[in-house]
Amino acid sequence: MQLIAGIESELSARSIALTIQLVDELQLEAELELYRRWASERRVDGVFIVDLRVEDPRLDELVRLGLPAVVLAGSRGRHPLPTVWQNEADAVAGAVRYLAALGHRRIVRVGGAEGFVQTKNRTEAYLRTAGELGLAGTVVTTDFMAETGAHVTRQLLSDRQPPTAFIYESDILAVAGLGVAHEMGLHIPRDLSIIACDDSPFCQVVHPPISAITRDIPGLGAEACKRLLELIEHGQSADLELPHGHLTPRGTTGRAPAHLTSQPGARLRC
Amino acid sequence: MQLIAGIESELSARSIALTIQLVDELQLEAELELYRRWASERRVDGVFIVDLRVEDPRLDELVRLGLPAVVLAGSRGRHPLPTVWQNEADAVAGAVRYLAALGHRRIVRVGGAEGFVQTKNRTEAYLRTAGELGLAGTVVTTDFMAETGAHVTRQLLSDRQPPTAFIYESDILAVAGLGVAHEMGLHIPRDLSIIACDDSPFCQVVHPPISAITRDIPGLGAEACKRLLELIEHGQSADLELPHGHLTPRGTTGRAPAHLTSQPGARLRC
Repeated sequence: MQLIAGIESELSARSIALTIQLVDELQLEAELELYRRWASERRVDGVFIVDLRVEDPRLDELVRLGLPAVVLAGSRGRHPLPTVWQNEADAVAGAVRYLAALGHRRIVRVGGAEGFVQTKNRTEAYLRTAGELGLAGTVVTTDFMAETGAHVTRQLLSDRQPPTAFIYESDILAVAGLGVAHEMGLHIPRDLSIIACDDSPFCQVVHPPISAITRDIPGLGAEACKRLLELIEHGQSADLELPHGHLTPRGTTGRAPAHLTSQPGARLRC
Repeated sequence: MQLIAGIESELSARSIALTIQLVDELQLEAELELYRRWASERRVDGVFIVDLRVEDPRLDELVRLGLPAVVLAGSRGRHPLPTVWQNEADAVAGAVRYLAALGHRRIVRVGGAEGFVQTKNRTEAYLRTAGELGLAGTVVTTDFMAETGAHVTRQLLSDRQPPTAFIYESDILAVAGLGVAHEMGLHIPRDLSIIACDDSPFCQVVHPPISAITRDIPGLGAEACKRLLELIEHGQSADLELPHGHLTPRGTTGRAPAHLTSQPGARLRC
């Protein structure tokens, strides 16, 4: 909704309507069919593309159809369409480094679904940064559903050597993870640290409030909208990189449990 | 989003596009202007009206413009437009009775903003039911913002005689209330019960999961859509009452603290 609000902040002054079509994320063919119909009936003047796939047939099809399109993404990507993007890799790398600086060595990333560029970018940034820090990276993928996030958190926290920190793909996954931690009697952040890659009001009002990567989503929507209008009016538009998100530390990040940060010889628990 | 998904489940089979215009809830005049433009330019075939106000100038204006419109609401209301509705008063009354049966005597309703029909309906149902049960009803209104919900909860729980139960207008207000309860060291539901009038995945994954009034929102969207298509095609449509929501008890509702449910003579706390 923040993205829609950002787009409409630009459109409303010009009396242009935004049509929103929800498509099943697994049915790309139906989405392609929609673009073909929109293009042939001239029902829409241009489209925003979000949730980019690693192999995304929409990009070539939009170019073929000549339907003006702007991509909103977390990286530039190798495709011909104008893109408004915020470097997500840098934000994720910053979160991993922050947790490592707090003494965490077992940091698990609970990601979204494979096949999405966002998930891929964030996973690569996480693994690269963990590698640089000499940490073994662990990535669990989910279908973005809260229930799945709760389930994998429960499983991982039941391990003999449970993680001391989680980085969740979204706000709802992080809230689910915090719920499981409470359910299992853990004290946050003494026993476990949690970071959400997407912020929301929910992250801010649970207790403790969840440390999250904060980005200017309305700004992303507004800039993408300006680019699309430019593309429609002048036939071309340029890419734009917006400032990347940064970690807003709240109540779910703290130093790793002391017995886990000391040297191997001193690992006895008191 | 559940509502949009419900509407689009009906539209997509007929290749009809849904245009969504976010309007500032305080700027009704801008919304009226939009309808006038849409009607004169024949840019849309019909509209859905949500978030009905107690005094709502949109209804008469839509009738005047002859723009087909269907109202989605929690009560039938006295206006000429076809309405698809779920009786919210019954659901709220049920929640109050359930809390009373658990021994609660100090049940506070944290509602939405005055001026909205939904807030008015729910407040009336709450006060009427509390009256029938011999309870003093307390209603606090908010601007629907999470921060406000947290603030009023903090204030009320700091009272010398704090409430033993809260009924919140929305999922985000309830999550905020639960956050404050945890922040203040209360055990839920031993010390405090919480009910949300709107359910969401967030209610289900916090700990303990929040007891909430569950309604079929996609079904409401789909039925409203059928009615609007009927109205556009045949010039008329009938009202439809859908089954009302019901309380789904989860982990935030329990018996009132024992020392508060006994008779006046036995009120000494052990």
